[in-house]
Amino acid sequence: MTYCLAIAVDSGLVLASDSRTNAGVDNVNTYPKMFSFSVPDKGFFTLLTSGNLATTQAVVHQIEQDLKHDLDLAEGEKPVGSFAVCKDMNEAAKYLGTLAVKLKNYYERDLNQAANFDCTFILGGQIIGEPCQIFMVYPEGNFIQNSPYSPFLQIGETKYGKPILDRVIKRNTSLEAAARCALVSLDSTMRSNLSVAPPFDLMIYEKDKLEPAHVMHYKQNSPYYSSMRKRWGEGLMELFNDLPLFDWEKNDK
Amino acid sequence: MTYCLAIAVDSGLVLASDSRTNAGVDNVNTYPKMFSFSVPDKGFFTLLTSGNLATTQAVVHQIEQDLKHDLDLAEGEKPVGSFAVCKDMNEAAKYLGTLAVKLKNYYERDLNQAANFDCTFILGGQIIGEPCQIFMVYPEGNFIQNSPYSPFLQIGETKYGKPILDRVIKRNTSLEAAARCALVSLDSTMRSNLSVAPPFDLMIYEKDKLEPAHVMHYKQNSPYYSSMRKRWGEGLMELFNDLPLFDWEKNDK
Repeated sequence: MTYCLAIAVDSGLVLASDSRTNAGVDNVNTYPKMFSFSVPDKGFFTLLTSGNLATTQAVVHQIEQDLKHDLDLAEGEKPVGSFAVCKDMNEAAKYLGTLAVKLKNYYERDLNQAANFDCTFILGGQIIGEPCQIFMVYPEGNFIQNSPYSPFLQIGETKYGKPILDRVIKRNTSLEAAARCALVSLDSTMRSNLSVAPPFDLMIYEKDKLEPAHVMHYKQNSPYYSSMRKRWGEGLMELFNDLPLFDWEKNDK
Repeated sequence: MTYCLAIAVDSGLVLASDSRTNAGVDNVNTYPKMFSFSVPDKGFFTLLTSGNLATTQAVVHQIEQDLKHDLDLAEGEKPVGSFAVCKDMNEAAKYLGTLAVKLKNYYERDLNQAANFDCTFILGGQIIGEPCQIFMVYPEGNFIQNSPYSPFLQIGETKYGKPILDRVIKRNTSLEAAARCALVSLDSTMRSNLSVAPPFDLMIYEKDKLEPAHVMHYKQNSPYYSSMRKRWGEGLMELFNDLPLFDWEKNDK
């Protein structure tokens, strides 16, 4: 499984991912699921990946190839279509979705294989002069943007970590608070689903900077993650133990 | 959807359920999903239900009929099999599972209908002289008991409310703390999934009492539930806002 999420607040973006992959419970590995592309004179793009690892790796490889091609165009040569030539984030999401469908169709249709080659992505970033945005790209190639009322998107094992996002995240949440919330959300998910696990990648992108403001990589014992996790766990137990008593408990006192 | 859970601690049982049913989002209703059976000289049984409402209602009706039959046996008459004649909770779970499969098979096989008639149950209770126990009964009629390491069972929309159970519930948790935890778990689920909603039914069963110690029915605005919910929501935000700062935030101060 996987858990990745992206948050779009007024001041920028937060992107976060776990790194566990598994092909059955007896074949567990650690792979990055966050990939960034800084395109000179164009913008900044970050991809979060879930689903079939062969397909997601093929997609990332092809994005790099297309980008290289379109940035090194010879005189009179046409671009193949890539992040370098998208006019807005919407077009970038469409490029990504189309690419993913084409790549999985090679195995599904050309080679006529029956496995599940699907993958789902979150694409976040900013094109110069455009707002920064996040999109969820489905295995069918189509895509959605986040709701303005709940400005986050999740892929993979989304439920365990959603309640804290529902409570905390608003458009005017600070980037740092959004990043802490993403880490709490990853931590809650990891505790309830073994197929989500650190290291966690966490990135903060400030609007209009066209490069990440902070890139963190947290292992289980990284000092900040450990101390946040300890405080959150202890604080939850304190809060729980301090909840109002039932009527009969008061009378017993 | 539905969310029901049962917790088995050293001192007894906690059972809780929401009351929302829906057949499509345009057909939402409120039905009880918790049914108790107090059987004289035998024991106490509580059923939590999820799945096809026609099947769960048929199951509850047939349990009542079987119980009535076996408690009013005429001279020489044989019991049909019911909670009145089960020798332990394991046998009660088997009776329930078998009954549910027979009832859904009438529609699925005899009438050859293609809808999903499945339902899943939690059965909790105690037979005189036996330990109190909880079982999850699957649509196929088979069943499991809770793990001694995480002594709770959930049916329906289980994920949003699981992290708090994972953190709080141990075998030696008090009945009152377990009941509060069940309510927090229902509240978290309700916030993230519209198809789970109050009123909530909450029951505390003390070991060897053979009747419930406390039976609560909480609406959205019930005083205890409101105050617990408010304290939990505010406390979570205080705790979140008090989490350790990232290094660069400290330097900024």
